[in-house]
Amino acid sequence: MPSTTSREPKQLILNLFEMNTVSHITHGLWRLPGNNRHRFGDLDYWTELAQLAEDGGFHAVFLADVVGAYDTFRGGPETAIREGLQIPSNDPLLVVPAMAAVTRHLGFGVTFSTTYEPPFAFARRMSTLDHLTKGRVGWNVVTSYLPNAARNFGLDGEVPHDRRYEIADEFLDVTYKLWEGSWDDDAVVADADGGVWSDPAKVRRIDHVGEHFSVQGPHLSAPSPQRTPVVFQATGSPAGTRFAGRHAEVVFTGGRTAADFRGNAQRMRDAAALHGRSGDELKFVVQAGVIVGRTEEEAARTWEEYRRHSSVEGILAHRGYPIDLPNLPPQLRVVDALDQAGLPPSALPGVGPETTVGEALRAAAEQREDRYFVVGTPTVVADEIERWLDEDGVDGINLRQYHSFETLTRFAELVVPELRRRGRLAERPQTPSTLRETLFSRKARLPASHPAARYRGGANLAAPLAPLRFG
Amino acid sequence: MPSTTSREPKQLILNLFEMNTVSHITHGLWRLPGNNRHRFGDLDYWTELAQLAEDGGFHAVFLADVVGAYDTFRGGPETAIREGLQIPSNDPLLVVPAMAAVTRHLGFGVTFSTTYEPPFAFARRMSTLDHLTKGRVGWNVVTSYLPNAARNFGLDGEVPHDRRYEIADEFLDVTYKLWEGSWDDDAVVADADGGVWSDPAKVRRIDHVGEHFSVQGPHLSAPSPQRTPVVFQATGSPAGTRFAGRHAEVVFTGGRTAADFRGNAQRMRDAAALHGRSGDELKFVVQAGVIVGRTEEEAARTWEEYRRHSSVEGILAHRGYPIDLPNLPPQLRVVDALDQAGLPPSALPGVGPETTVGEALRAAAEQREDRYFVVGTPTVVADEIERWLDEDGVDGINLRQYHSFETLTRFAELVVPELRRRGRLAERPQTPSTLRETLFSRKARLPASHPAARYRGGANLAAPLAPLRFG
Repeated sequence: MPSTTSREPKQLILNLFEMNTVSHITHGLWRLPGNNRHRFGDLDYWTELAQLAEDGGFHAVFLADVVGAYDTFRGGPETAIREGLQIPSNDPLLVVPAMAAVTRHLGFGVTFSTTYEPPFAFARRMSTLDHLTKGRVGWNVVTSYLPNAARNFGLDGEVPHDRRYEIADEFLDVTYKLWEGSWDDDAVVADADGGVWSDPAKVRRIDHVGEHFSVQGPHLSAPSPQRTPVVFQATGSPAGTRFAGRHAEVVFTGGRTAADFRGNAQRMRDAAALHGRSGDELKFVVQAGVIVGRTEEEAARTWEEYRRHSSVEGILAHRGYPIDLPNLPPQLRVVDALDQAGLPPSALPGVGPETTVGEALRAAAEQREDRYFVVGTPTVVADEIERWLDEDGVDGINLRQYHSFETLTRFAELVVPELRRRGRLAERPQTPSTLRETLFSRKARLPASHPAARYRGGANLAAPLAPLRFG
Repeated sequence: MPSTTSREPKQLILNLFEMNTVSHITHGLWRLPGNNRHRFGDLDYWTELAQLAEDGGFHAVFLADVVGAYDTFRGGPETAIREGLQIPSNDPLLVVPAMAAVTRHLGFGVTFSTTYEPPFAFARRMSTLDHLTKGRVGWNVVTSYLPNAARNFGLDGEVPHDRRYEIADEFLDVTYKLWEGSWDDDAVVADADGGVWSDPAKVRRIDHVGEHFSVQGPHLSAPSPQRTPVVFQATGSPAGTRFAGRHAEVVFTGGRTAADFRGNAQRMRDAAALHGRSGDELKFVVQAGVIVGRTEEEAARTWEEYRRHSSVEGILAHRGYPIDLPNLPPQLRVVDALDQAGLPPSALPGVGPETTVGEALRAAAEQREDRYFVVGTPTVVADEIERWLDEDGVDGINLRQYHSFETLTRFAELVVPELRRRGRLAERPQTPSTLRETLFSRKARLPASHPAARYRGGANLAAPLAPLRFG
């Protein structure tokens, strides 16, 4: 939805994209001089990062996660292990309390998969974080896609994609009941004279009995500032789109062109309408690569340095390339290489029919999205970001880190002031607010149109949410 | 094992007993003036507590947990809800990173049940904490006993006691493989020039296939300072004793008399011997109530104030009393009251055949263990603690909190200096150490005699641990 005609320029949601690991997405770059990624296991890495992000004007740190190893490339996890490609990695929720202790405004989006762990314990963990952060948490709902993850949790292999979304739908239903419908707003009275901490008439079981989960309740945590954390979802698939229509508040998606992105976003808005939600209840963020310099030369030099340190093998292993491109003749067409391996062209999506192995390797080394990537001065960068906001209708970015903390500090120093001058980023308010208030012109709690709202006042009194069916 | 004849006086392990809730064990006392328990959802409650404990000479904060509501008393959770009796409660692991960020020496024992959640994710959470705290975490292994907890995790009712210990035994086996046997000590090389973060030859799957769990691995976290966190276990039952013999490093147990305690401890040492472990590999801590004052009068006044605020109903609900004592005639014998409710005398253990309802209520209101409880001046308290150490063979205490933070600060101010004078507590060393080094004259890693050690160098190469069978 281009907003160039509106009076107020559209505001940017600015998140830092992180993961509790060595090499999240910019593989090989942990080797850059001064990069702090080797410190990811230290508390002060996270407190330093959080303070820089808050002082630098970021709205949130968005933490990715996986619960398995990338072990498809060359038939094993060896490349991932060598590259530090999301292994070793640590739990994302556990760095939030330390970051929250040194900040007042910064939000925290944490990734958690609905496929392998029970909803009761997770709901309590998120309520705990919402209390500790005073309402600054979001949950990035994912369903997991790594076969090794499934085998870490007792399954023989991956749960089929659409089936995972059915489980996720019920998982969210359970958590909504716990978060919104188990405790009334005024259940905690803390009446010392009367000897009443909570009023038992205002705390209730949820008695959820579904296809995948049975959960009695009551929820163990008292109402937190947001109750349901901000619901993020990373998706682009048809099942994911339907799911987002019901559940998501912020969708992390992408597109190769403006039209691509707009089509994606529109499909999700349409899906939301089917659930009685208005399109503007959803916001869309994209992963963005920004290389900024005081001059064009400085920016180009930085980008060149990043490219030189980039690891093509890390990138291929991350993408789960089914063929070993670096060990094939550069002139060979990729489709022929696939054919020789007994694989159809669809085994490597996004590669043209004439693309050679050499070209595919060079493209991989660029480590960039087709559209949400820019190298240049603050003016060039801000122009480009404004285009994403106005032409594509993007609402925000998850800023990809090439160098920790240089990516963050340069963006804060050079781009944030320019975006503020242009009215694209507001000055930080004096008073902290919840993440939902920060991201939306909205109260701390979910709007009444969200399906979770039905459980307010009694999870077991409301008509249950009909399960979504996929496939 | 009395140690009065040894040259060096026996040292005290000093832990603060906590829970991420309003009313942990001293029910009704949240109403005491100045008590901070209502702040348990705030980060600064925990950072303040941690700093006071570290500065006050405590070795660790020991965090209890349950994952359900106490809903036996009067047939529902109403009393627990009214009393704040472990509900609302929040996740214990998530307050550790914030406490770790403001301390250097303090250890953290966290409770986690092996009955309802998958070992793979938990093992990673503990490794994450061990990294973030630089080796200052312990795990209090419990198997859960609340029927409501089972129903929060999809079960119809409680898993039978002995069966829970069989699951726990395999759960620990899985975590040992992940913690000790998936990564070699020198697997992480962080060689920027060579482009190698970890050496793939030194990271391996665990390929665990057991009765309750199948876990492929590799572990996602790199080796942390302690690898396996210090293994605490809270028990006294026959199955728990056998389990402790194999697994526990520190047992949280009790006894009504010195002989009781010594018998308990000896049975666990004997159980350890069956697994080729020496008795001195186990330490024993008890829950202790200490009311200290500068004078006998001040101590007595404090105790009287605590008793006045104590909630008998909270205590009865916590103990899951099967009969409603406060609504029965005070002169009635408890066995007769049980009989009228169709219950055998064994339904209320620890009550004598002639005890009346009134006597039982008064005993409950005392909120004290029979032996590990003392009211008095620092001299009286220190004398009593020395008796526990020397006559009973206790190694340490989990100090029960009546008032947060008064219990802690008074103990630190009045008792710790006295124990130091008597050589029962060492001055804090300059250099921080891991929790295992703090509690034992032992390295950061488990001793070779512990069953987890067999997996070093390759979880899938070692002879597997034979499952313990109970019942």
